[in-house]
Order: sequence, then C-alpha cells, then structure tokens
Amino acid sequence: MAVNSGIRVSVLGLGAMGSALAGALVKGGYATTVWNRSAGKADDLVAQGAEAAATAGDAVRASQLVIACLLDHASVHEVFDPLSDELAGRTLINVTTTSPEQSREFAAWAAGAGVAYLDGGIMAVPHMIGQPESSILYSGSADVFERYKPLLDLWGTSSYFGEDAGLASLYDLALLAGMYVMFAGFLHGAAMVAPAGVTAGEFAARATPWLTAMTGAFQGLAAVVDGGDYTVGGQQSLEFSHLGDLLAASSDQGIGTEVVAMVQRLIQRQIDAGHGEEGFARIIESIRQPG
Amino acid sequence: MAVNSGIRVSVLGLGAMGSALAGALVKGGYATTVWNRSAGKADDLVAQGAEAAATAGDAVRASQLVIACLLDHASVHEVFDPLSDELAGRTLINVTTTSPEQSREFAAWAAGAGVAYLDGGIMAVPHMIGQPESSILYSGSADVFERYKPLLDLWGTSSYFGEDAGLASLYDLALLAGMYVMFAGFLHGAAMVAPAGVTAGEFAARATPWLTAMTGAFQGLAAVVDGGDYTVGGQQSLEFSHLGDLLAASSDQGIGTEVVAMVQRLIQRQIDAGHGEEGFARIIESIRQPG
Repeated sequence: MAVNSGIRVSVLGLGAMGSALAGALVKGGYATTVWNRSAGKADDLVAQGAEAAATAGDAVRASQLVIACLLDHASVHEVFDPLSDELAGRTLINVTTTSPEQSREFAAWAAGAGVAYLDGGIMAVPHMIGQPESSILYSGSADVFERYKPLLDLWGTSSYFGEDAGLASLYDLALLAGMYVMFAGFLHGAAMVAPAGVTAGEFAARATPWLTAMTGAFQGLAAVVDGGDYTVGGQQSLEFSHLGDLLAASSDQGIGTEVVAMVQRLIQRQIDAGHGEEGFARIIESIRQPG
Repeated sequence: MAVNSGIRVSVLGLGAMGSALAGALVKGGYATTVWNRSAGKADDLVAQGAEAAATAGDAVRASQLVIACLLDHASVHEVFDPLSDELAGRTLINVTTTSPEQSREFAAWAAGAGVAYLDGGIMAVPHMIGQPESSILYSGSADVFERYKPLLDLWGTSSYFGEDAGLASLYDLALLAGMYVMFAGFLHGAAMVAPAGVTAGEFAARATPWLTAMTGAFQGLAAVVDGGDYTVGGQQSLEFSHLGDLLAASSDQGIGTEVVAMVQRLIQRQIDAGHGEEGFARIIESIRQPG
C-alpha cells in the first residue's frame, strides 16, 4: 500500500456509505483506521489494508483527520460527546446525513471543543463513490476543505458552499426535493400513458431527453425570481399554464390527479390573488407563503 | 419563392403558433395559403409569399393538405363542420391543442367525412419552430405522416406514435405533466435555500446538472414498473425514501411543504399498505390507485 502524504485518517461508521468512503481512502493510499459500533464491518477493509480500531476513542486518537459517517445526528453526539478531549486540536469531517439545524448545532459543539469542523452532504449512492458523478457538498471550515480537498476528491466531485455549516445539508435537501418531485412527475406521466399500451420504458425514452431539455428553463425561471418582477415579458403566464386539461386527461385515464393537482393549487392561488397574467415563476410565491 | 414538390398547403389559424408554422412552410418553399377568423393576421405571411384566403372554405379548396392550428377543440368543429364536403378526399393535419378524447372524437369525425387525418401535439413555443429542439408528436394516419414527413420536419423533430389519434395528445400531456411537476420541485428547492442567502440563479446552476443527471434514473425506475416486481434488489426502499427530513427542513426555512408533501403521501400510502421495504418506483401504484 502506498502511503499518501503521511496523512492518517480514521473513518467512524462502516455502513454501506462509510465502507465505500473508507475503501476509497485505502485505495487512494491513505493510512486509514476504521471503526464501527457493531463488529465485523471492518473485515473487508482490513483485508484491503485498513487498520481496525477497537473503540471509537482509539480511532480518534489514531489520526489527525477523523471522518464520521454515522446513522444520524443523535449517533454523532453519542459517539463524540465522550471524546471531546481526544478530538480537541484534531479535524472532524462529518458526512452523516443531518438537517441544516443539526449540522449547525454540531458545528457549534465542535467549535466549543476546539475541533476544526467541516460538514458534508453526499449526493450519491455507495457504489457511485469514487466516480465524478458522485457529488459531495461541504460547508463549515474553508481551511479544512482546502487542506483536505485532494483526499475529498477521491470520493467524487467536491463542492464548498460557505462557512455556515448548515449550508451543505440545506443544499443537499433542496436538491433531493427537486429529485423526488421530478421522479413523481415522471411516474405520473408513465401512469398516464400506460392505459394506452405504452410501457414505462417507452415513456422513459421520451421523458429523459424532454426533461433534460426542460432543465434548460431553470435559469430563466430563476432570473425572474431573483429579479422579483413576475410581469416581465417572454414568460408563459399563469393563466396559460392552467392545468385543467392535464387533470382531466389524468382522470380520463383512470389514474389519480394529486401529483398534478399540487402544481395546479400553486398556480390557482396566484390567479386567485390577481396575478393570472404574470409569469409561471410566480408559483414560488405560493411555496414561500403557503395558503 | 421556390416551389416545393408541387404540394399546396393551407394553414387555418394564425395565432402565434399557426403563424410560425405557416412561416416555416413558406420559407421551405411550399405554396402556402393562409386563413384566420379575424383579419390582419395574414399580412406578414403574405409579405413573405403566402396567399391569403377570404374564407375557411376558400382555404380548404385551395390545397390538398390542410393544417389546422386553432384555439381549441370547439373551434376545430366550428370551422370544419360546415366544410365536410369540401374536406372529403383531402388530408387534414390538426395541431390544435386538444385532449386525447377530443383528438379521438375528431379523428372519428374525419373518418366519417372521408378525410385522411393526422393529429399533432407541439412540444415547443412559437419561436422554437424550425429548430431541432422543437419536438412535434403525431398520431393517427401513418400514411399521412409518411407522405408529409419532409414538410413536417420543417417545424422541428417529428415523431409518430401510432394509429390511435389520441396518442400524440396523451404523450404531449404526460410529458407536460413531468415538466410542470419538475418546475415545481425546482422552485421548491430554490425557496428552501433562499433564506440562507442563496439566489435562485445560484441554485439553478446546481439544480440543472443535478436533475439532468437524475433523469438517468428514469429507465431504472421504468424497468421496475414494467417488470411489476418492486422487491427486486438494488433499489432505494420506500422506508429509506421517507421525506420527513425534507419536510422538517422546509418548515424550518419558513416555507410551505405541499410540494414535497405530495410525494410523501404517495410514499406513505405504500408504506401503510405494507410495502415499506419495496422500491421507490412503487409510488406509481399510489398514482394508479389514488387514496
């Protein structure tokens, strides 16, 4: 095993994601110590060249850089609260999935303990780790991000958002929201065409290039939102966007309408408030100020 | 003006879209007759080389191929019902926006009148007509599609779906459903990050490549749907997809949750029915059989 830059790194938490992260570090030539609460998870990594620590404290003491990939925010406190003295002066990169508020709370804990802290959100599934399509978002200490970027880049494409430790998690959740909602829209479309004998695969072959092309409209919608003037020309109006035909066609196909009805409610509230001739981007006001 | 293949074509309905379609035909060298219910709409096209017809009947009689781009389904009947004798033996391509049921109804009318009929759905805005990104979906007579494909290709990328005249409209609406729902998801994400000082433009710069990449998951979701077995491995489970964190983070940011709550309801109904360990694609069953 090549030794990379003399940096020792410990990975705490060896679920599917933590194991993938640790495996990429071992493969990248870092001297890697691993620990998991329940035994047996480290065996494969040890076979690849990692060292197993018997306790979380041993893992922390083994390395200047500590990576946490635990179950949730509560687990992070359970593992590290008793180890604040050992962690003091070291660096912690926490990629456990947490809310923005939880990330900020733990960043404050780390600051109090004298720990340099970077929070991460992983936009990938474990088997993608190490590929450029694996996108990992970071916020918190800019110094930590800059110093360890070559190591972080072993996991995928690394992006830094700012000193507010909650930003990466917030971005992560906002992008996931877009993904889940898009998937629901795709599956609604697939359900619409199914009664006409169209397979979901045939529909996907059309929907993939179509929705890819339509992501090209995001910047235009964003420019209107950021400008704050929904009356500027060139936009499709809310009245024109009325989804009555879509709802009727869904009902005619014998499927539910709630996916599309969600969008229609956002549109209708703006029309009811007198903004029907303004642009479609205005539905963000229905999201900002729910009815 | 070059004369293309000796084909005369008439375009009825000169709104923004009808004018764009007629303009592309004139530019493509077709001898083009145009008509609109209200006067004055033909002037620009006449200046480009089109001939204006005084009545809809004159327009129909002028050409073997008649294109209709009218306001709605009712307008199509208003214009053509009195002209069934004149239309008999000719070809009608109707790109008026209608529902699948309306397309099928008019196809039956056309069959009764001895008119070869092709129905079209335009996935483009008028200024896109003539560009390959302008996608136009057709269903109905395969003979008409094949014979006139070089002409139709002047408008953009032409796709044929089958003899059922309602299919193009159904596909059109299903793809539009996907688009509107995706836009709502994008704007929800933008609303989530806004309180942290992130502009919609900054969020769009992340969301565009992210959601483009995530369209790559459609074929995998579709394969599970078409296979009908939601327990196959490698999928993210419904329980793992639970959107509680997303809903909580949205509320923490002070915005509404209804966009994400829509997806959560689809997930929850399947979990409640005992399918929590099955794959995310199963939410299509919540759409097919609404609660």
